[in-house]
Amino acid sequence: MAEKSHQEGHPTKAFGWAARDHSGVLSPFNFSRRATGEKDVAFKVLFCGVCHSDLHMIKNEWGISTYPVVPGHEIVGQVTEVGSKVEKFKVGDKVGVGYMIGSCHSCDSCHDDLENYCPEVILTSGGKYHDGTTTYGGFSDIMVADEHYAVRIPENLPLDSGAPLLCAGITVYSPLRFYGLDKPGMHVGVVGLGGLGHVAVKFAKAMGVKVTVISTSLKKKEEALEHLGAHSFLVSRDPDQMQAAAGTMDGIIDTVSAAHPLFPLLGLLKTQGKLVLVGAPVKPLELPVFPLIMGRKIVGGSSIGGMKETQEMIDFAAENNITADVEVIPMDYVNTAFERLAKADVRYRFVIDVGNTLKI
Amino acid sequence: MAEKSHQEGHPTKAFGWAARDHSGVLSPFNFSRRATGEKDVAFKVLFCGVCHSDLHMIKNEWGISTYPVVPGHEIVGQVTEVGSKVEKFKVGDKVGVGYMIGSCHSCDSCHDDLENYCPEVILTSGGKYHDGTTTYGGFSDIMVADEHYAVRIPENLPLDSGAPLLCAGITVYSPLRFYGLDKPGMHVGVVGLGGLGHVAVKFAKAMGVKVTVISTSLKKKEEALEHLGAHSFLVSRDPDQMQAAAGTMDGIIDTVSAAHPLFPLLGLLKTQGKLVLVGAPVKPLELPVFPLIMGRKIVGGSSIGGMKETQEMIDFAAENNITADVEVIPMDYVNTAFERLAKADVRYRFVIDVGNTLKI
Repeated sequence: MAEKSHQEGHPTKAFGWAARDHSGVLSPFNFSRRATGEKDVAFKVLFCGVCHSDLHMIKNEWGISTYPVVPGHEIVGQVTEVGSKVEKFKVGDKVGVGYMIGSCHSCDSCHDDLENYCPEVILTSGGKYHDGTTTYGGFSDIMVADEHYAVRIPENLPLDSGAPLLCAGITVYSPLRFYGLDKPGMHVGVVGLGGLGHVAVKFAKAMGVKVTVISTSLKKKEEALEHLGAHSFLVSRDPDQMQAAAGTMDGIIDTVSAAHPLFPLLGLLKTQGKLVLVGAPVKPLELPVFPLIMGRKIVGGSSIGGMKETQEMIDFAAENNITADVEVIPMDYVNTAFERLAKADVRYRFVIDVGNTLKI
Repeated sequence: MAEKSHQEGHPTKAFGWAARDHSGVLSPFNFSRRATGEKDVAFKVLFCGVCHSDLHMIKNEWGISTYPVVPGHEIVGQVTEVGSKVEKFKVGDKVGVGYMIGSCHSCDSCHDDLENYCPEVILTSGGKYHDGTTTYGGFSDIMVADEHYAVRIPENLPLDSGAPLLCAGITVYSPLRFYGLDKPGMHVGVVGLGGLGHVAVKFAKAMGVKVTVISTSLKKKEEALEHLGAHSFLVSRDPDQMQAAAGTMDGIIDTVSAAHPLFPLLGLLKTQGKLVLVGAPVKPLELPVFPLIMGRKIVGGSSIGGMKETQEMIDFAAENNITADVEVIPMDYVNTAFERLAKADVRYRFVIDVGNTLKI
């Protein structure tokens, strides 16, 4: 029954790679996509990024996965068909889809262009769509999406290194804007130099912000300063360095999803500084309250961004030549890629060349 | 030597009650105050509130106390002398002094009317003043203060029940304003119905905000609803009640200084809701990160308020007939009062009638 259900109901044959159980091992997978509705765009997938949350999903580490799981939510492609009421796209356009592919359209968040905070938000992979079917992500040959949840990809944005912006990019761009950490001359720290962190450095720099990378070890110093162009680098385990930088930052974008101490980070903030968490540790972190009270500091969170802001982010990236640093891989390398990702052995994002390497 | 130092240097004889060691027991104490400087006001103390942080200080529970400690930082009095350059006061005026009595006047916080966040802020009791002497608080017959750190007490504000506004009042008023929880029609939760919490209910109500009191037990329900006029009441240990109220609040003012779980409180917040901590637990609290990220919620802190805002708060209180609920006590009851305060046996603030009961 389970194997049958994802073949039924939808008329369009599709093909991708899926995990079948919590081993997380992916293998070729035949399924189907819905017919292109009047507000839908259908597109051929060209590139798809490999995000750390894909790793959680294929192994059911959040306990919400429904197998088979077709991962992938940093998707760029080329439009092959548009519904009769589609306004933003025509056949041949480049299109991007990120972490969400639907929402309720009627709650306050949806009205405020914050579909990402809609209580009924539908994830691009592993979500439950309006028609009751499980959503399959971008590790596949074709996608069908409501045009509202698709963004236009500007002509000059490279498709491979641009793909990770759809999740990693908006995840760090949105809090820089929302928490007001985007003013020229400000000083912002970025904790963790991975898929999210390296893009955060690029966006913050493009906004005119002074950027300090904060890392647990010296290893990434040269990379941060010389390759990414961060203005300074702090080793978080060096109390002298941390003390010297105390009270200097307007905000910090913290991308680390492992457990880590917040106290040293709060010390880096100016009065009324903002520590924004975008990585999601499963267990609670320790929150020292005195620094919050004595400096009117805040700890906040942020999750991707709304569709309007995602388009704004992609346009901003294209204008400022911001892309992710990627390692482009063929589809059949994906299991190795996930093993390497689990060891943080990637600089900084795997992107699958779906268009050229997905073979039926 | 120690006993001698606080008698030296200053010309004006003063008398109060002081704790001599970490037993925290107070007894009569002779000391001196500085001469009234050109920007100073001298005043006879009439009433002084008894705050929970006084309890911490007399017992050295924060490890920063220097004995003898003359507590008291919710002080109202009547001006007896003004310096030649004093502009705000004349002899006979009613005057109030709160938690701080000095700051650097040159940092960003001082320039922004946020002296309370000045790194060199001087506490009214147990601080180190510009001249190097330890500051003695309001459990004493007279005070001398730089007029910048004194507020005018409006004619119609009762002096006994108005005194606690100088610390308890501004501690909750300031975050309601700063975090934007002061808009008519908003819904704000108040956690903990003590000295701070009961005033928070009054201020929020006067701002036109719907107020829900959140408490660990049903005991305070009648008090919250019928006496203080809160709009609703939640027992935080009742999962059904908490679930029914999930996602309904724009913000929460959390006045509890004991360790307590934040997860249930974060669940009460709407998307982008704000949990503001004004009580200061000594140990870190557990911070669940998922609710912050998935709802772009924040946890922030706040500490008293700047002098401009403290004056604004007092004027707002006078206009809206807001005072604390107090139990007025004689000076020689203070040790019993601290014992009762440690057991939360006060409804809601002790205020010492210093003017009438302090006998040399």
